[in-house]
Amino acid sequence: MSVVDIHTHVYPPSYISLLRSRTTVPYIYSSPSSPIHRLIILPSDDDASLPPSLRGRPVGPEYWDISHKLRFMDIHGIDKSVISLANPWLDFLSPREGAKWAREINNEVNEIAEKSQGRLYGFATLPLSAPVEDIVAEIERLKTLSYIRGVVMGTTGLGKGMDDETLDLVFAALERESQLIFLHPHYGLPSSVYGPRATEYGHVLPLALGFPLETTVAVTRMLLSGVWDRFKRLNVLLAHSGGTLPFLAGRIESCVRHDSFLKKTGKIENRRDVWDVLKNNVYLDAVIYSHVGLKAAIGASTSDRIMFGTDHPFFPPLEESETAWPSVNTNYTAIKNSLENSEDETAVLGMNAMRVLNLT
Amino acid sequence: MSVVDIHTHVYPPSYISLLRSRTTVPYIYSSPSSPIHRLIILPSDDDASLPPSLRGRPVGPEYWDISHKLRFMDIHGIDKSVISLANPWLDFLSPREGAKWAREINNEVNEIAEKSQGRLYGFATLPLSAPVEDIVAEIERLKTLSYIRGVVMGTTGLGKGMDDETLDLVFAALERESQLIFLHPHYGLPSSVYGPRATEYGHVLPLALGFPLETTVAVTRMLLSGVWDRFKRLNVLLAHSGGTLPFLAGRIESCVRHDSFLKKTGKIENRRDVWDVLKNNVYLDAVIYSHVGLKAAIGASTSDRIMFGTDHPFFPPLEESETAWPSVNTNYTAIKNSLENSEDETAVLGMNAMRVLNLT
Repeated sequence: MSVVDIHTHVYPPSYISLLRSRTTVPYIYSSPSSPIHRLIILPSDDDASLPPSLRGRPVGPEYWDISHKLRFMDIHGIDKSVISLANPWLDFLSPREGAKWAREINNEVNEIAEKSQGRLYGFATLPLSAPVEDIVAEIERLKTLSYIRGVVMGTTGLGKGMDDETLDLVFAALERESQLIFLHPHYGLPSSVYGPRATEYGHVLPLALGFPLETTVAVTRMLLSGVWDRFKRLNVLLAHSGGTLPFLAGRIESCVRHDSFLKKTGKIENRRDVWDVLKNNVYLDAVIYSHVGLKAAIGASTSDRIMFGTDHPFFPPLEESETAWPSVNTNYTAIKNSLENSEDETAVLGMNAMRVLNLT
Repeated sequence: MSVVDIHTHVYPPSYISLLRSRTTVPYIYSSPSSPIHRLIILPSDDDASLPPSLRGRPVGPEYWDISHKLRFMDIHGIDKSVISLANPWLDFLSPREGAKWAREINNEVNEIAEKSQGRLYGFATLPLSAPVEDIVAEIERLKTLSYIRGVVMGTTGLGKGMDDETLDLVFAALERESQLIFLHPHYGLPSSVYGPRATEYGHVLPLALGFPLETTVAVTRMLLSGVWDRFKRLNVLLAHSGGTLPFLAGRIESCVRHDSFLKKTGKIENRRDVWDVLKNNVYLDAVIYSHVGLKAAIGASTSDRIMFGTDHPFFPPLEESETAWPSVNTNYTAIKNSLENSEDETAVLGMNAMRVLNLT
């Protein structure tokens, strides 16, 4: 049995130097009075009036030094990891810079994997701020990087979201090249949603709710704009068990079927519905921290489309003394409590990833 | 066996005249060229550039004439309904008007129920824009209205959301008077979240996602601000099976436990966690349109805390010829497919409501 972690992030050294060179989000911030550097990736964290402990999060070698990743894998019984650049990827670059950085980072991720003696694979990053020809060229180049198994992507697409028709060129290339999209949140929801007391709750509201809600909106916009009617073999792996898609799938489908405007425009018939897409184009990670959520993910999809993940290096233990991460063990326990037989458990823990991502 | 619908709305005649007298949201709009009046309750619908079929929704006697409600109940085998004023309730009134309207509408709802020969009960409406003494006075008056079984409430509280400390006076009164809150969405999410193509999808994004996400944010803000640590017997019934709370409960709890800021402020320990509140203070309706979602609701709570609902008169059939409503039958089927024995099914369909709301 192999355990495979398909949701695990890195900031390769080149990306770290990029973040250190910047003074606007995203950037790495260091204060002369503290040895701890902090990573500011959410616009809401970029506020000098916040106490330092609320400005972003501490960032150390666990983000870039791959020996930390391997040690983490050993401690948690993880055989293989498919690493992906963490948010916000290359979304913030100027159109001219994107393609060069994507090539550099994808080469670097591929090399890290190559050196790992079979323990690591990678998702590539696309230069989404660059001209669309550059994006397509990078997708086509990925087949030359033998450890790359898909692309990680945020929810803004080319700037107008995942239902932007211009993305069809990108989706067509991904489908043609059999590269899966690992769709991951970053931007959350406008802070007005959380109200005036949000900072009293640390990062809980944007992380616990903003992230999954962002993913849900993005994938629903893809669905409603007919992405999967046009690209029937385009596959996505949704972070955090689909945001909230498994729970809301029934409501989404019911709202579509009861929408008088959609009926008039003929859009209710002749479309692939949410359940069809969930069972044929969507993969879900098992990063949902409870058997209740995981069972819904399995019910909406099937147990052979769910894959173990950790979200490392995020959500580390708060106590220095802990070596096993509670966040990881919560997800292990959820898998144990959600699946009825050991075959399905083996599938979710690793065999699905081995098969779907063609790992050896 | 009794079937009880606890999520079913009315606009009593007095409220309809209020809406007809207005020209800003919420209002009822009628065009000289069409016999169909339209109800504009969402700010996003209040746009004269939209085609008439996208401006709100048709509104007819099913909203105010109680014989329509009773006929709907007969067609769908519903024995009793607990009617509630539909959104946006009295949120929009000036502070001076609120108390008078709340009294008038609550009396009217109580009288409708009284005349129904045991088929109807009601949730009351609070004058949340009025001074807090007026709100508390109305809560205390409710015991004189013998068919009232709690209060329906939106998510804005007194204007600053459900984690506003001033609401403690309201929560204290509700707990003291054993009046449950039926928490219901209305405001959704800022439209920027849905992107530039949102209107192409009719009302799907705000209804299918905005509503449940709003409820989830509201209840999580209540939880994080310690409402249930201070009011241990305060009960809420969450619309649409909790928004997405059952699915995200594990992530919320994990984010709390991994938040270094909350740790520093001592807020991780000595609090009732999300599972505790779900199993002791939260009731969920069964309006989720799939067995996948409903099973998660049951798993996060328990089958004796889930109650059948319809959301009538919203989501009517699009075909005039249909008398049985697909939206209702989808929820009936979900209940059938989610519960393992007929005792639990009977509980969800009606016995839970009979017990929790003390119906006879």
